[in-house]
Amino acid sequence: MKESTMPPTAYLAATGAALPGEPVGNRELGAALGVSDEWIDVFVGTRTRHFTRDLATGEIRGSLADLCAEAGGAALAESGLEAADIDFLVLATATPDRLLPTTAAEVADRLGLDHLPAYQLQSGCSGALQAVEFGRALLGAGAGAGLVLGGDVTHRHLELKPGASRLPTRELVNYVLFGDGAGAAVLTAEPAGHRVAVRGTVHALTGLGREPGQVVDWYGVGDRHSTRPMLAEDYKAIEEQVPLMAAEALWDLLGLVDWAPEEIAFLLPPQLSRRMTERVMERLPLPGAREVSCVTETGNTGNALPFCQLDRLLGQMGEGDRALALAVESSKWIKAGLALEKV
Amino acid sequence: MKESTMPPTAYLAATGAALPGEPVGNRELGAALGVSDEWIDVFVGTRTRHFTRDLATGEIRGSLADLCAEAGGAALAESGLEAADIDFLVLATATPDRLLPTTAAEVADRLGLDHLPAYQLQSGCSGALQAVEFGRALLGAGAGAGLVLGGDVTHRHLELKPGASRLPTRELVNYVLFGDGAGAAVLTAEPAGHRVAVRGTVHALTGLGREPGQVVDWYGVGDRHSTRPMLAEDYKAIEEQVPLMAAEALWDLLGLVDWAPEEIAFLLPPQLSRRMTERVMERLPLPGAREVSCVTETGNTGNALPFCQLDRLLGQMGEGDRALALAVESSKWIKAGLALEKV
Repeated sequence: MKESTMPPTAYLAATGAALPGEPVGNRELGAALGVSDEWIDVFVGTRTRHFTRDLATGEIRGSLADLCAEAGGAALAESGLEAADIDFLVLATATPDRLLPTTAAEVADRLGLDHLPAYQLQSGCSGALQAVEFGRALLGAGAGAGLVLGGDVTHRHLELKPGASRLPTRELVNYVLFGDGAGAAVLTAEPAGHRVAVRGTVHALTGLGREPGQVVDWYGVGDRHSTRPMLAEDYKAIEEQVPLMAAEALWDLLGLVDWAPEEIAFLLPPQLSRRMTERVMERLPLPGAREVSCVTETGNTGNALPFCQLDRLLGQMGEGDRALALAVESSKWIKAGLALEKV
Repeated sequence: MKESTMPPTAYLAATGAALPGEPVGNRELGAALGVSDEWIDVFVGTRTRHFTRDLATGEIRGSLADLCAEAGGAALAESGLEAADIDFLVLATATPDRLLPTTAAEVADRLGLDHLPAYQLQSGCSGALQAVEFGRALLGAGAGAGLVLGGDVTHRHLELKPGASRLPTRELVNYVLFGDGAGAAVLTAEPAGHRVAVRGTVHALTGLGREPGQVVDWYGVGDRHSTRPMLAEDYKAIEEQVPLMAAEALWDLLGLVDWAPEEIAFLLPPQLSRRMTERVMERLPLPGAREVSCVTETGNTGNALPFCQLDRLLGQMGEGDRALALAVESSKWIKAGLALEKV
């Protein structure tokens, strides 16, 4: 991309996050699945997560639209903008409530947003960063402000019951990796609120000729008795590739905005699990950067997670501070990143 | 949107389309469902459509990725661009093959595209126009060329068997409305190929406080025994609203680009069904415009259909000719449009 045609700057003005119900600890989750809490700790390192499903009763207590509307409402309230100031909405998720209407349209309805484009991105761990990048392009095309959101809920893919402990590890791990949640940010064309400029974005599919690292499927009425797996991970490939791809995204970003590693005050690493984040951090040469993570408390909330990290970051940044956010999506091997600077 | 910040122009350089198998006529479809071909003709007016499902054997002969790769490959070949010239891919669909990896990523893989952003929009009848609008913003942010696609396949939502004739009309109509297909266009920042400029786009959700006109749902492993309907339409609301919203989109577009009705040489109307297109055309005051439609031969192919119309349009346009494409998505009431001019 030529310097003269670089996209104009967008600003993160405000953020919001939403998690359903009370945190579910490893002991409680282990008991529901029939595995030990030590195994969860050693294998993924996550301490708590939140589920829309009540573990005790099985009741589903909320939808993705509920969580996104809560997170989006919080971001809007913090920004001080009114519904009429919002020119677009972009929502990223792997697990929409329905195929149509989009959850983006449902969330717009809940927030009183109308007569604006409401886009929905189908995406995994890189979706929040895709939504920010997309929002930045829309601001460049003339919009003044927009609401970007991400979130996922797991209850259709995870049957939390004791028989799960007899699953092969590659399937069982899904039950302890993920959590439900949503996050949001208000983007503005001019500095507002937290005044954190998006100086550069990286977003690249790198999956040519490679098998997917993660598959998430769905059934229709015509194939609901199929035996194909709904959720599958190539955990070995993920362990091997994610740290490498995170380092690639880091260097891509630093090169794009021409920043030196020692200028980075905060790093928001990929958050597949606590253990994976530790492995990723070992390979990222940013000794002066403070890590901003959520995964230990939330589990991997997919499209929500980078918003949760941004929600923790913004209040910590001082004028001139620089931060990098990185995400790796193992589905078809996507690397993504944001270069941020408070003005 | 202020004039000074209008998005830069994008150009439709080439298009492609793909339909699975042989056309399925009303007699053949009627026999499979247990209804008369006259009923299909009176109710929806469509003559043929294509299905990935072989009606005789029930075999599924292809995926959305297959169709999109065929359409995208045709558009790329017509454009004369190489994979390395393509800076982004945007794919719009209501019916992705899987939730992850995205069909966008799978199609990139089939076409040899790598190290580029591959976005997937979850969308209905307005998705093709959303993809063009999104591509235009990405060109404005510095990209030189991109591939935009749309497509849908119906086999997970429609069980084509004789018992269908006992369904209530509001469900039975789905079996005769829809067809499978995909379409694609190559967008360029500078005039190339067919040199059809995208002068303006309209895309607005107008569903605040309104019930959806169409619902398309999915099951996970945890809820596949649910009895909630997978596909439901409020046909009365659609019949009432779609012509009104198409007229609104027309006037929005004409106002945006400051064109008079008599300057429009071609009109690409919404294509819910042949009958609905006739009702829509009655309300659109463009006596000098030639209608460009596909629905009679393809059925409603959702996200593919506007690409099929564009595929028929581009070769007919002479220098200076102006065209409008309109779409209405009844899910949560989205109106969309493109204003096109050959340079």
